[in-house]
Amino acid sequence: MTRRIGIDVGGTKILGIAVDEDGHQIARVRRATGWGEDAVADGIAAVIDELVGPGAGAAVGIGVPGQIAPGSGVVEHALNLGIGRADLAAAIVERTGIRPVVDNDVRMAAVGARALLPTGDSLAYLNLGTGIGAGIVDARGPWRGSRGAAGEIGHVPIDPAGPLCRCGQRGCIEALAGGGALAERWGRDDALPVLAVMDAADAGDPRALLLRDDLVRGVAAAVRLLVLATDVDLVALGGGVASLGVRLLDPVRTTLAAASASSPFLGSLRLDERVVLVPPGTAVGALGAALSASRHPAARTVSPR
Amino acid sequence: MTRRIGIDVGGTKILGIAVDEDGHQIARVRRATGWGEDAVADGIAAVIDELVGPGAGAAVGIGVPGQIAPGSGVVEHALNLGIGRADLAAAIVERTGIRPVVDNDVRMAAVGARALLPTGDSLAYLNLGTGIGAGIVDARGPWRGSRGAAGEIGHVPIDPAGPLCRCGQRGCIEALAGGGALAERWGRDDALPVLAVMDAADAGDPRALLLRDDLVRGVAAAVRLLVLATDVDLVALGGGVASLGVRLLDPVRTTLAAASASSPFLGSLRLDERVVLVPPGTAVGALGAALSASRHPAARTVSPR
Repeated sequence: MTRRIGIDVGGTKILGIAVDEDGHQIARVRRATGWGEDAVADGIAAVIDELVGPGAGAAVGIGVPGQIAPGSGVVEHALNLGIGRADLAAAIVERTGIRPVVDNDVRMAAVGARALLPTGDSLAYLNLGTGIGAGIVDARGPWRGSRGAAGEIGHVPIDPAGPLCRCGQRGCIEALAGGGALAERWGRDDALPVLAVMDAADAGDPRALLLRDDLVRGVAAAVRLLVLATDVDLVALGGGVASLGVRLLDPVRTTLAAASASSPFLGSLRLDERVVLVPPGTAVGALGAALSASRHPAARTVSPR
Repeated sequence: MTRRIGIDVGGTKILGIAVDEDGHQIARVRRATGWGEDAVADGIAAVIDELVGPGAGAAVGIGVPGQIAPGSGVVEHALNLGIGRADLAAAIVERTGIRPVVDNDVRMAAVGARALLPTGDSLAYLNLGTGIGAGIVDARGPWRGSRGAAGEIGHVPIDPAGPLCRCGQRGCIEALAGGGALAERWGRDDALPVLAVMDAADAGDPRALLLRDDLVRGVAAAVRLLVLATDVDLVALGGGVASLGVRLLDPVRTTLAAASASSPFLGSLRLDERVVLVPPGTAVGALGAALSASRHPAARTVSPR
């Protein structure tokens, strides 16, 4: 039988899993990510090798940062991997004989989160990492948009008086609530800056309180925007900053509930009830990639190694 | 042959069209809209009668303001029609023997605009009327969301220091750029308040200049938000305020181009090139309703009159 493999390529590690027919994880492999197209492709191929074994076939899905034109397998602007533009699908075919399905990592994570969470129909996965982006998925599959840029809500400005964003605009959601922007504004040398901000805010540090407020209102704004634009059933928070867990979720829900209390229209949308956390420790990115592999017809044509 | 009928129910008029197999309009009927469920249903049935003729069958689509749970035919919150909650599909079956496809009017207009405009794939129809909302559609059909509320971007706040919105929040896109909010803030007794604001702004009136700025930045924000969230190919401006034509389109494009100039990321999205006007005089709402009727399996089961 053909194995389903899902690979999540991050800035520091490549995580690969194999799943059984029911989508349950049966194997897991982890490697450090190399720099640049060749090193990244070599690392992915090595993970595939380990998960598939010699002589076997596989359907492979790969989630990778950057913009991927729908169906192309070509990755653009994956700057944290050292990739400006690369035909990643072709590079993997060359190395493994398997043509993978390649899509944006956040979009793949949305597919994985939808499989894990009890959502009626549609879900937005809100990735809270160094940057902020979302993947939107329903029963028909992920929404990619015309250029594979759907879900880039981190760069929606929500406050003309807010801080400058690295994108060049002012008051973007990412400038308020992105892990990178928060660390930069905090400015101290902490190993986990967002956690340090939360602790300092709890201790009453006025600057930390301000930053925590920006984090919470930025995340709440992202949730509201996603629900208003797409009316997804559920918004699932994931990514490094979401590992704050209920320390983030609770104030975000409180903020959304307060907005709903002042607005019957928002109240009818039950925003606070639609936000959840991705279960900690689940590899939603790799899972979504594995599930996407099996759906895509091209991935079913697998060459023996 | 079964006729395809599309009906657009507005606050003041019901507009019905019949289209041929290629989707071209072959007949058009207009009636004043009544108040409340029975009067609205009577008016729609009368329009269907006129367009179909006795003894013939038809597939009927109806676009109506308010929220319609996907596939239900039940209209909620259509306050400008005097409808709190009504099973409009059942009311039309009762009166005509035909089961119509019922959807939100803006979503139907998005389907119509996509059929008229040279869009590669996906389109957002941005309705600029008394209020502001959008319909999002691609080759798979319109995006409805879990409760039929997708596209309600008028109530995304973009300025914490902006004017209060009728929804209870502050600085919503609709509070800045909605025709109703602009007329209220203008406060003078003009027949066409938004046009009066534009003329007064051209003449240098300081308050009109401020309102015009809010209109332009609100519409530009809606376009940016739609493209960032959904990456649609095209954003088509329609509705009463969009009849300002290039007097609105040009400054909106200039605003988007200026944001792009300061942000390479936004620049890569070519926002200003993605905004267009719906061709003046086209009944996109009725057209979209007619095209939706023919696609929906339920609409093909037509009883003879």
